[in-house]
Amino acid sequence: MIQKQELLDCHRRIKPFIHRTTVLSSKLINKIAGAEVFFKCENFQRGGAYKMRGATNAILQLSDEQRGNGVVTHSSGNFAQAVSLGAKSLGVTAHIVMPTSAPEVKKTGVKEYEGIIYECEPTLDAREYNANKIAQDTGATLLHPSNDIDVIIGQGTAAMELLEDYPDLNAIFCPVGGGGLIAGSALAAHYFGNDCKVFGGEPFEADDAYRSLQSGKIEGNESTNTLADGLKTTLGSNNFPIIKEHVSGIIRVTEEEIVSAMQLIWERMKIIVEPSSAVTLAALLTDKENFKNQKVGIIISGGNVDLSKLPF
Amino acid sequence: MIQKQELLDCHRRIKPFIHRTTVLSSKLINKIAGAEVFFKCENFQRGGAYKMRGATNAILQLSDEQRGNGVVTHSSGNFAQAVSLGAKSLGVTAHIVMPTSAPEVKKTGVKEYEGIIYECEPTLDAREYNANKIAQDTGATLLHPSNDIDVIIGQGTAAMELLEDYPDLNAIFCPVGGGGLIAGSALAAHYFGNDCKVFGGEPFEADDAYRSLQSGKIEGNESTNTLADGLKTTLGSNNFPIIKEHVSGIIRVTEEEIVSAMQLIWERMKIIVEPSSAVTLAALLTDKENFKNQKVGIIISGGNVDLSKLPF
Repeated sequence: MIQKQELLDCHRRIKPFIHRTTVLSSKLINKIAGAEVFFKCENFQRGGAYKMRGATNAILQLSDEQRGNGVVTHSSGNFAQAVSLGAKSLGVTAHIVMPTSAPEVKKTGVKEYEGIIYECEPTLDAREYNANKIAQDTGATLLHPSNDIDVIIGQGTAAMELLEDYPDLNAIFCPVGGGGLIAGSALAAHYFGNDCKVFGGEPFEADDAYRSLQSGKIEGNESTNTLADGLKTTLGSNNFPIIKEHVSGIIRVTEEEIVSAMQLIWERMKIIVEPSSAVTLAALLTDKENFKNQKVGIIISGGNVDLSKLPF
Repeated sequence: MIQKQELLDCHRRIKPFIHRTTVLSSKLINKIAGAEVFFKCENFQRGGAYKMRGATNAILQLSDEQRGNGVVTHSSGNFAQAVSLGAKSLGVTAHIVMPTSAPEVKKTGVKEYEGIIYECEPTLDAREYNANKIAQDTGATLLHPSNDIDVIIGQGTAAMELLEDYPDLNAIFCPVGGGGLIAGSALAAHYFGNDCKVFGGEPFEADDAYRSLQSGKIEGNESTNTLADGLKTTLGSNNFPIIKEHVSGIIRVTEEEIVSAMQLIWERMKIIVEPSSAVTLAALLTDKENFKNQKVGIIISGGNVDLSKLPF
């Protein structure tokens, strides 16, 4: 069981390398939701996503020898950028396995941060195979984007900060992809919240986490035909037990609901969020009867979008 | 001459009705500009633009009898939304003359805030004729979007807040349309800055303010073929003297420079700004040799964009 002190230590450790992101609200969205909604803007985080938190924490925990051998990861984009940027700040080589389907803007980000890209088929098997092979060949340390304990703890610091700013939140919503963010956020709510529940938002088109909580074991996705490109991965052995214990529910949304929530955020809040981030607001709106007059935090996970390929 | 105390009184008066908007920075943009750049995010203002400040101030200055007769204005969009929203908050009827060319998203905003729209030809003459006629017919008070003294003072409060947060700015950049924002900002810099100069950004395609400062009298535009739909209007008799006295220069930019600055802000800062707002960063980048290592404030004037009609 990850301890409260580990989250506090992590936050202190990564602070010099991350932004303390702002929290925004919208009267109109509050009115639509029938709740007070607080958006933790991790789209303003370095690298454009919360992933910088976990990546930085994991790299900072490596020995000098390990840092000398570099790090390797696989990611459709945001973790790839985060590892590249975090590694670059600390003078560490980053090997990045990316599926060919990853958005161009995310590949460009990795290149700018001097990560070395290895393209592979867009399946979890191909991603893991390639990352493991690079680790063996180079001696680089494999950082898992969502199942590494140091990564999970790091991702929890966004919810920690949100609860520092708004201690009396009734609920926090996170998107659920590989499970790192929601597991970290659930730990943060457990240790720093005041009876604050954590809910996941997930596309129907990639609802592995919903089905995993139902069956009690980690389920995969037969297909992942969703705009929310960051949410196609499945839960891991380290984060699933945390999710089972501390997450109150997973709310599924349609692709139409994702696009509509995304457009609402863009038009009304004037911020750029990726489809994966809009899933959370979509989930709250779908289930708003259960959150009436509550104070709800939403982790806006990232803002890395191909502007030439918008769904509206 | 508008006095310092008038700005302070205005800020106190409008505070309950406006947001104190956040100030954002981007390391990458600082690097590209070779300066420290502070973006005052008036795209997060109520109504999506700084115009709420001046509109609210002007309506608050009306007598009860005047409020009972309503207000009328002409605007391509942001001032229209601001007057509608400000008037609605204070229980005042708002008549809004809008050119047929105004973006759909801005017309929708006016309707949501219960402003009554009157469409007209997209020329300044047609706009003024229609607004004057409504004033005569209804007894409504005409609020000029950029030449009303109370509006000019109100618009200056964005720069006041920016200088409260960053007192040692060397320069502030504003877009120049009708001249209300830059005149108000120039007064704020004069009274609250520490030798802070004010510069305007203007499209080559509507460079009336640049030519007006050259000739010493208010010039018009023969055509206004620019993406920056908020910057097509010309200076006014009240704001021009302030601009002549307190503005250090107008920097002109091409349409390509506007699109490129807009894309840079969207992709890197993850905020939605309209083309008129991107003109300021474009102006700074065009002239960056003159601002090397300086601290530069930029007023991001608004974020009301038709998402279905993006220039990239």
